[in-house]
Formats: sequence, C-alpha cells, structure tokens
Amino acid sequence: MFSRSIAHILRKPSAFQNLGQLRFKSTTLSELSAQKVKVNKSNALKPLVPAKDLVFGKTFTDHMITAEWEEGQGWKSPEIRPFENFKILPSAVVFHYALTCFEGLKAYKGKDGKIRLFRPDMNMKRMNNSVSRIALPSFNGDELIKLIGDYLKIDERWIPSERGYSLYLRPTCMGTQETLGVNPSSRALLFVIGCPVGPYYKTGFAAVSLKATTEFVRAWPRGTGSSKIGANYASGILPQQLAAKEGYQQNLWLFGDEHELTEVGTMNLFILMKNEKGEKELVTPPLDGSILPGVTRDSIIELAKEWESETGIKVVEKKMTMPQLRDAIKKDRIVEMFGAGTACIVSPIKCINYEGEDLQIPLDPSNPEEQAGPFTKRVNKTILDIQYGEVEHPWSVVVN
Amino acid sequence: MFSRSIAHILRKPSAFQNLGQLRFKSTTLSELSAQKVKVNKSNALKPLVPAKDLVFGKTFTDHMITAEWEEGQGWKSPEIRPFENFKILPSAVVFHYALTCFEGLKAYKGKDGKIRLFRPDMNMKRMNNSVSRIALPSFNGDELIKLIGDYLKIDERWIPSERGYSLYLRPTCMGTQETLGVNPSSRALLFVIGCPVGPYYKTGFAAVSLKATTEFVRAWPRGTGSSKIGANYASGILPQQLAAKEGYQQNLWLFGDEHELTEVGTMNLFILMKNEKGEKELVTPPLDGSILPGVTRDSIIELAKEWESETGIKVVEKKMTMPQLRDAIKKDRIVEMFGAGTACIVSPIKCINYEGEDLQIPLDPSNPEEQAGPFTKRVNKTILDIQYGEVEHPWSVVVN
Repeated sequence: MFSRSIAHILRKPSAFQNLGQLRFKSTTLSELSAQKVKVNKSNALKPLVPAKDLVFGKTFTDHMITAEWEEGQGWKSPEIRPFENFKILPSAVVFHYALTCFEGLKAYKGKDGKIRLFRPDMNMKRMNNSVSRIALPSFNGDELIKLIGDYLKIDERWIPSERGYSLYLRPTCMGTQETLGVNPSSRALLFVIGCPVGPYYKTGFAAVSLKATTEFVRAWPRGTGSSKIGANYASGILPQQLAAKEGYQQNLWLFGDEHELTEVGTMNLFILMKNEKGEKELVTPPLDGSILPGVTRDSIIELAKEWESETGIKVVEKKMTMPQLRDAIKKDRIVEMFGAGTACIVSPIKCINYEGEDLQIPLDPSNPEEQAGPFTKRVNKTILDIQYGEVEHPWSVVVN
Repeated sequence: MFSRSIAHILRKPSAFQNLGQLRFKSTTLSELSAQKVKVNKSNALKPLVPAKDLVFGKTFTDHMITAEWEEGQGWKSPEIRPFENFKILPSAVVFHYALTCFEGLKAYKGKDGKIRLFRPDMNMKRMNNSVSRIALPSFNGDELIKLIGDYLKIDERWIPSERGYSLYLRPTCMGTQETLGVNPSSRALLFVIGCPVGPYYKTGFAAVSLKATTEFVRAWPRGTGSSKIGANYASGILPQQLAAKEGYQQNLWLFGDEHELTEVGTMNLFILMKNEKGEKELVTPPLDGSILPGVTRDSIIELAKEWESETGIKVVEKKMTMPQLRDAIKKDRIVEMFGAGTACIVSPIKCINYEGEDLQIPLDPSNPEEQAGPFTKRVNKTILDIQYGEVEHPWSVVVN
C-alpha cells in the first residue's frame, strides 16, 4: 500500500514548497521586503551581560525584527523595534494548535571585526519548507537575510567577539489568527530575536552520555520530522527529562521495531566506524523525511567527502539499528561518535544506555584525558575557522 | 523489539500520570485552589452577538480564568479577569517548542434555566494526561471545574439558552518560560476562555464527504496521538486544506501500510455495519495510544452498549483497514458512518474518496432527503437530551 512516489517526494527537502503556495495562486500579494523596513530604536538600551554569565537563550538584545502577514494582503512592512512583550489574545491559534516553526543560526564576529553568518540560505530554505508544512505563508529568504543584516548592525554591540562566542539568532513564524477554527491561519507573525551565547563547552569538550529511548518515538514516515516545527520539540521534552533523571545528558531517538538510529536529542548523529571489511566509514542516518536536515549535518558530510582522498574515510548515509551499533561497539569497530547541530557544532558521545546496558564509546584512545577524538576535533575546528572568517570559504557570508 | 508491556501501558489513558509527577516528588508545592480565586470584573462589558451571527471560536465572553504556575512554587492564586491580550515575551517557549495542550467542552443552559457541563471530569483527566506528556504541571481537575463554575456564573449572560446553542469552553495550559532552552518549562499558564456557539448544523444535519489521506500520517505508536496537545493539530492543517481544495469537508486519517482507519479530521470515527455473518456491529478504532480518547466517543460506546439488547447492535473496538471498508461498502454491508466530537456530537459521512475513487456511504435508505441515518440521529438526540437536562443522567453536571 505504501506509495513509493510519495515517499520519494517526501524525502526531498523541497517537497512542501509547492503545497505551501496553494493559497497564493490567484492573487498578487505583498512580498516580504527589506527595503520597506521601519526602524524604531529602543531608547532604553540594556547593559551588556559579561561573557562568563551568558546562558543559552536567556539574554536578548535590545531589538527584534517583526513582520506581519495577513491573508489576502501578504506581508506588511517589516519592523526593527525594541525587544518587548507581544500583546496577543488568548485565542491566538499558536497557543492552541502549535502553529509555529523556527530556525537557529548564529552571527559571528571575526578578528577582522566583520560579522558573518554561516550558510543562512540553508536556514531560509528550511524555514520555507517548515511554514509550508503547517500552512503558514512562505517568504523571500534573501529579504529576511537582509533584514537580519540590518538588525545585526543596530545591535552589533551584542555580538561577542571572542572565538566560540556568537549571537544566536532565532527566526520564528507563527499563526496569530485570534479565532479557534482548525484551519490555515489567516494571520501570521514572522520574528527574529537574538541572544549572545558562549561556547557550548566552556573548558574544552565535554563528552555526553545518551539514553536510548525505546518507549517514545520522535517522528515517523509521512509525519513532520523533517520540518523544523515547534510540534516536533514538544514531545521530546519528557523523554529528555526521563534520560536526565537517570543521569544521561541527552536521549537517543530510535525508530521502529528494529530500533533504527535517528537523532540525538535535538542534534543529528554521526558514527565514525570500521565496517566489516575494516574500511573507515562516517555513517549518518539518511534524510528519509523523518530526520531534520541539519545545516551542520550537511556541512560535515561535505567536508568529510572533501577529506576522503586524504583520510580514507567514506561518508555513508544509511540506516543503522541500535543492535547493529551495539554489536559494532562490542567488536571495537566504533572509532568516534558525535551529535551535530548549530548550538555545539559537534557534541562527542562517550556512552549509550540501551536496554539497561551502558555501552562505552571511545573518545581518543591515544589520550584518556581527551573528551573528543581527532576526527570530531577536526570537524569542529574546520567549521569554527570558517564561521569566524579565519579561512575564506563560500559558506561564510559577510554582513555588509 | 517492540516492547509489549510498554505498548500495554501506553494504551491506558492514565499512562503518563506518574511521569508528569516526576518534578513534584520532593517538595510541597501550592495546589490549584478555587477558593483562592481573585475576581477582577471587566468594567466594559461587550454587547452580546445575535445567535444567528455566531461563528465557532470567534466571539469570546467578557472574562477568562487564568492561573500561573512556577517551578518550585506551584500554582499561584487563580484569577477571573477581563478577556484581554496576554503580554508575553517573544522568547516564551510556547512560541518555539509548541508546549501547549487544551480541552474542549461546553456549558449548556436547559429549559429549567440551569447551567450544565457534560462529563467535565473526563476533560480534566485527559488534560492532566496531556500536560504530563509535555512536562507541564498537573493540577486538581475538581478545582478547575469549580473555577469554571464561578466563571460561568459571572459570564452567564453569554450562555445561549436555545437547544443546540451552548458556551464552548477552551481550557488551555502552555509553557511560558521566557528563555529558549529545550527543557521542561519552569513556568506555565493555565487559562480558560469561552465562546458562545450555535448548532453545528443550522438546518438539520449536513452529511460530509471525506478525503482519505494517504500521504500524511497523524500519529504513530509511542507518539503523542492520544494526548490532546497542540502539536497533534499543527500537522493536520495542510492535509485538511488539501482535502478542502478537492471539495471534501474533512480528511480521513489512515495509518500504516495497510491503511488502518484511525480518525476523521479532528473527530473519532464510527461505522455501523453488518459483519460477514450479517450481524450488526458498531465499529470504532481502539484506543491503541495513537487515537484521541474522545469524551463523545466514550459516551457513544456506553450508550450503544446499553441499547444492545434492544437494537442487537454490538459495539466492537477494533482495527479496520480502508480496503476492508471499501469492500464492505461495495457489498452493501455499511449501514451508517459518522464522526464524533464535542463540537458536533455526530457528523454523518456520505462519501469517502480513497485512491481516487468516491465511495458512497448510505445515509437513510428510507428517505433520500435525510442527511443522517436513524442510529446517528438517535445518538445525537440522546446526548443532546442529557446535555440540556431534558433527561436526568449522571453525565450531566449542574453548575451550582
């Protein structure tokens, strides 16, 4: 019964772009335009928070970007205005039907004083897929990148300049129709807030222990797992809490009766291993429609492919089950494992609890003091160098 | 690999009650208390909306109930206060991670002038399951029912008194922590808003046509389908929109490669049919953890069981696939079909489009003018009579 053609379509990140355009076909609506931006600066700038006191997602800059959308009209003039309370009726659909999606990216300040974004086009493309999946309006991603540039110049003092520090940006789009019908929202609000963040590991790497979750599933075929919508996150809080209660920092998401590996908490998963022929492979679960297409994931795959002739490590996007991983761990075929995401770049994994058993993952066999293996460290350093502009790379976009 | 014991637990509506208590174990926190309510009446009452102009979820009464919760403290004093904007930072977790769940129930005014609720204990129990699934705080449902009683007395003029009209109540609980960590929310807001609504069908029944959705899946075993969380609704908007575009009022959710019947849009599904032995059965998909345990669903099952000795109709909670249903339709074994939910009680189904074919469902063979069969009508009338107090029944709770 499973429709192969649909499965094929759903695997493509662009699958929903056309669906999301359904409502816009016959009228000419205003597009999101950075040129139309209205700037209303705060007259009560907040004191900066010392770098050592930064906590992820806690401190916000003085301003934010907002843009309203209304059915039949399109996007209104965007605004850069003080970061402050939204005033919104209790009947707004975002409060009831979880009509929201978001992105996470960072602005980096290099030694040359320039501000850079890392592959922001990938975030814009993914966000347009996300809005379409929940029937919110799409927008021109280049225009939002321009608006983010304007915002960054206004709030530049909030962008930390030390390596490892950055300004985390959170574009969000939500349904703001204030009536309760379970229908496409007739109003939407796109906004971007920013918060200065420190390095994920303040004192070098800290490898994490994972609890493999068998009693909850994150996503499924023909569901929403490949869209960055709020709905995918709500269900993960409890499994994460249960893992934490047992002393594991994150949970490892499995899928199906065979316990396929899918994601780590809110990160993509990478396994550097030797296959049965003794060849080195970098394995990561494939984008089958239930896995978030991470920007860091994509970047690591590209880098590892570039390095292949030198490292002999082949990138393999394939399904792998937890029993297969357990078997490989016990046969000493696992070299390194890590999660990958915007917040941390890479998060080395040292242990997985599966069906009651703690499976130990190697970090750096040459040095028991180290919290990450050489491949994990190389990935991290290479991406950091690109993000801070220490090497020239097309992924790094200077904000002019 | 599938754990039978876990599957068994997840099938029970109470499965998450203990999980949700995790955070409350070691401290004594304030409970939600109706006695502590602070009443702040609106001094600008709105004009009532004429019955004929009522649209579902559009008009709200003058007041609302709110109660804040904070980690380490518990529930603060609830308030009944004017229905007005929430002031909430853009960083609130409900906007990002869809940390919200809700209920739908109605207050009915009978010919005797009394206000009644229909099985509100079921809503409170289900809502406590929902909050637990997304790591929001649980609360004493009896206290919230008392608060709803207080609110209904204050806003009594908004409760329509004609049969079929009622005040729809929307209890909601959402995470209001204003920092972006993907963790259990350290703050929550429970609120109840109310809107007067008219009968679902203004001029008698209007049977609906459904589009069977094969390219999207609503829920999955060990997912969140049995919790009334916002996240389950976000993903349904697009399939509903696609069905509407093809001229179908609702979509029919299927599950798995065999296309098991699960739900109708946002309603539970009932099929009155003759089995292969010619015996009449009322078939509804079982509560396997992926189906919403509807209050109307449960009520219809109980009523049909009471009627069995008279009707000969046996209630059967079982999985049935779309191909099996198609086969039964073609063999004239389907007698009536309907969706069931709080908004409409029953919604008769006249057609299902499946894999490109419109399958016609009988309504009332004795009268082609009718939009619902005799069993569907009996269910509807019996429940309405209970809701409006025209018959005494323990399900109907008078607000004192």
